[in-house]
Amino acid sequence: MTPDQKHDLEEGLAFSPRFGADGLITCVTVDAGDGALLMVAHMNAEALEATLKTGIVHYWSRSRSSLWRKGDTSGQTQTLVELRIDCDQDCVMALVRVGGDGGACHTGRRSCFYRRVARQGDGFALEPLLPSFH
Amino acid sequence: MTPDQKHDLEEGLAFSPRFGADGLITCVTVDAGDGALLMVAHMNAEALEATLKTGIVHYWSRSRSSLWRKGDTSGQTQTLVELRIDCDQDCVMALVRVGGDGGACHTGRRSCFYRRVARQGDGFALEPLLPSFH
Repeated sequence: MTPDQKHDLEEGLAFSPRFGADGLITCVTVDAGDGALLMVAHMNAEALEATLKTGIVHYWSRSRSSLWRKGDTSGQTQTLVELRIDCDQDCVMALVRVGGDGGACHTGRRSCFYRRVARQGDGFALEPLLPSFH
Repeated sequence: MTPDQKHDLEEGLAFSPRFGADGLITCVTVDAGDGALLMVAHMNAEALEATLKTGIVHYWSRSRSSLWRKGDTSGQTQTLVELRIDCDQDCVMALVRVGGDGGACHTGRRSCFYRRVARQGDGFALEPLLPSFH
């Protein structure tokens, strides 16, 4: 990438999402109400386009290798409030309103980030966060 | 992965970060003060361990192929307040206190997510957010 191309990517207003070699871009999904981090998933070009065109967040499921309209089975539909993109356009941020019970994690929790790393002896272990923190 | 292994990964308290085929795990970095999303980057096992052992966030720079202690040149050191991990342990969340001028993006902005996607004619373009939003 030339310096001019880098500058356009970072400072320009052209929407040029950069998918990885696997055809995917990382999506960080936060609650539009309070900014809480809910989940991190991936989109291919089709999922990104479907998200922008329908206003309902779609991902690419790597485990099922299929387009995945979040909430189709769980009811936890994510309505897109805003989509942001990062400096070098290889990551997007979806600000969403969550339907159903308000959760985003397949384990039933609101957020996928429900454990923190804590020192344990010479190593590290996980500690569950209180439900009010995630 | 067997159902038992999946259950242990999701509900257990063993810290078992799962690095991708490229040896990297995605890290979502937020400001510990207000939860604002600052940046998304990657860690290899060495960067993750250095982060936990020193309390200063280290990443793996994919462009430079080197361990990267954020802030060494910019002064924007990230002090780790808490590290969380997601349900299937393939993504971490770093809650940080930012040193220097408080920014995280190499463009000089606080957050890398300073533009949003907006409809433009039949397609989409970017719009800069007001500095107060990022």
